[in-house]
Amino acid sequence: MSAILVVGSVGYDTISTPKGERANILGGSANYFSLAAAHYSEGGKSPVQVRVVGVVGDDYKNEDRVMLEQRGVDIKGLQTVHGETFRWSGKYEKDMNEATTLATHLNVFENFHPAIPTEYRDSKTVFLANIDPVLQLQVLEQVKGPRLIAADTMNYWISSKKNDLLKVLERINILMINESEIRQLTGNWNTIQAAKEVCKMGPRAVVVKRGEYGFMMYTQERYFILPAFPVENVIDPTGAGDTFAGGFLGHLAQLDRDWDREDLKAACVQGCLLASFTVQDFGVEGIRKVKSADLEQRLTSYREVIS
Amino acid sequence: MSAILVVGSVGYDTISTPKGERANILGGSANYFSLAAAHYSEGGKSPVQVRVVGVVGDDYKNEDRVMLEQRGVDIKGLQTVHGETFRWSGKYEKDMNEATTLATHLNVFENFHPAIPTEYRDSKTVFLANIDPVLQLQVLEQVKGPRLIAADTMNYWISSKKNDLLKVLERINILMINESEIRQLTGNWNTIQAAKEVCKMGPRAVVVKRGEYGFMMYTQERYFILPAFPVENVIDPTGAGDTFAGGFLGHLAQLDRDWDREDLKAACVQGCLLASFTVQDFGVEGIRKVKSADLEQRLTSYREVIS
Repeated sequence: MSAILVVGSVGYDTISTPKGERANILGGSANYFSLAAAHYSEGGKSPVQVRVVGVVGDDYKNEDRVMLEQRGVDIKGLQTVHGETFRWSGKYEKDMNEATTLATHLNVFENFHPAIPTEYRDSKTVFLANIDPVLQLQVLEQVKGPRLIAADTMNYWISSKKNDLLKVLERINILMINESEIRQLTGNWNTIQAAKEVCKMGPRAVVVKRGEYGFMMYTQERYFILPAFPVENVIDPTGAGDTFAGGFLGHLAQLDRDWDREDLKAACVQGCLLASFTVQDFGVEGIRKVKSADLEQRLTSYREVIS
Repeated sequence: MSAILVVGSVGYDTISTPKGERANILGGSANYFSLAAAHYSEGGKSPVQVRVVGVVGDDYKNEDRVMLEQRGVDIKGLQTVHGETFRWSGKYEKDMNEATTLATHLNVFENFHPAIPTEYRDSKTVFLANIDPVLQLQVLEQVKGPRLIAADTMNYWISSKKNDLLKVLERINILMINESEIRQLTGNWNTIQAAKEVCKMGPRAVVVKRGEYGFMMYTQERYFILPAFPVENVIDPTGAGDTFAGGFLGHLAQLDRDWDREDLKAACVQGCLLASFTVQDFGVEGIRKVKSADLEQRLTSYREVIS
């Protein structure tokens, strides 16, 4: 068994896209990540177990807990406290690459302090989803010698807590970040150069998520760049980045060995393809329904698209 | 010998980018296209000869004619008329994917009517660069059974001369178009769907140029999508699309046979790589200096980036 610890948000989203609207549907980075990484809970050298640390209020539905558990996700680290669960509401215009946030209600997430259960502390793979870098550092204080630490961040932390974020960067192996955010972080509009600059800040690799244009990875002084899988009917891009991270780290964790550049490349492709399922439906519906055979088939189609 | 006829603009550009400014430098779609296609004037089954039809004023410099001739380009079809040469001035902001036009002086281009010299009429490959679709149709009336006709267009013609443009689409084999323009042409923001729709308008293939994100080709109900070559120091993106077209058609013309999907894929890669040289310097300086060995080396590097 190869364990992945994810610390991130768990909540309910209200989403409007050109294809429709949904109110109070399951969301949050930790949910998307877990459902993607759970695809690697069978097969491989070492089946993956995903361990979630987050916080929900007493309005959090039991069926949403059960859904994760049924996928083999360990949610012992999901604290339930008195109050309302985190809620986000956003809108996508015709260009679905970036959402406009309409409202963020932190609710119980406001006083969240990640307490890593003792039995989670030996997790070999750690994903610090997009939360306050101060909390990301608190997680790193609690884990014991993970093999691989990856992190995400966002514009809000880059502008408000840059010093803490820089401390995080010194301690992680891989940064996974949006294109607009890496521009903000480095002050460099050329993302090819920006990726290089991030690697000087600490990480051995940086993965730039480019929405419908796919991804760019920079590591060991070389780039690996591919487009997204062509999706004709994008319904809701929410969670695509966290799905990518879940597929990426799920693949690496399953290998259960020191990772090299070739492993990271294959991991990017896994993340990219799982994300293409997420955007095909609202919320977690797209990723939740994916079977191994679907992923295999999409990998075959993808290879035809890029070669 | 395999001849390519290009009909397009020839002019002088004044360009401002975050990397500097240049006034009255050589530009125009036909110049970028010719310099790219001229790379295939040696080797291959059938060396390519590029034939240019366009118009310049009496201020057009002789050295600019000589430069093309030295690359083996036939400029007999370049009419010189009394008046000033076409001039364009544009500015790129930090996001260098699209220029803001500051001024367009059509000058002698305003009364341009493409007269295809008799000895050009048997050209097997025809490129209708971004000019009035009415003029594009006039060119098609004059050529005799070309094997391959490709065309470009732009937002201005899509909004002002859509009916004429639709007539062009019925008669060409390949449309090469920017991402924002294919959205405008089809009214569809999903470029994956939009490419399919264009193929219903006539062309057997459509190549969507995505700037720093590379290209997407749709033909025979399948996609071929790859990123651009990662360029760390983009100086001036002007002419990248016409360079792409020149590399694309130069490669196909050199094969001198009926083209299939595999040929089109290789042609996309050639166009994409030549365009990466264009953006590395102002105006035509980038593409003008490229040697076969440079292109070979870049192809090797590109393969490493995408596989």
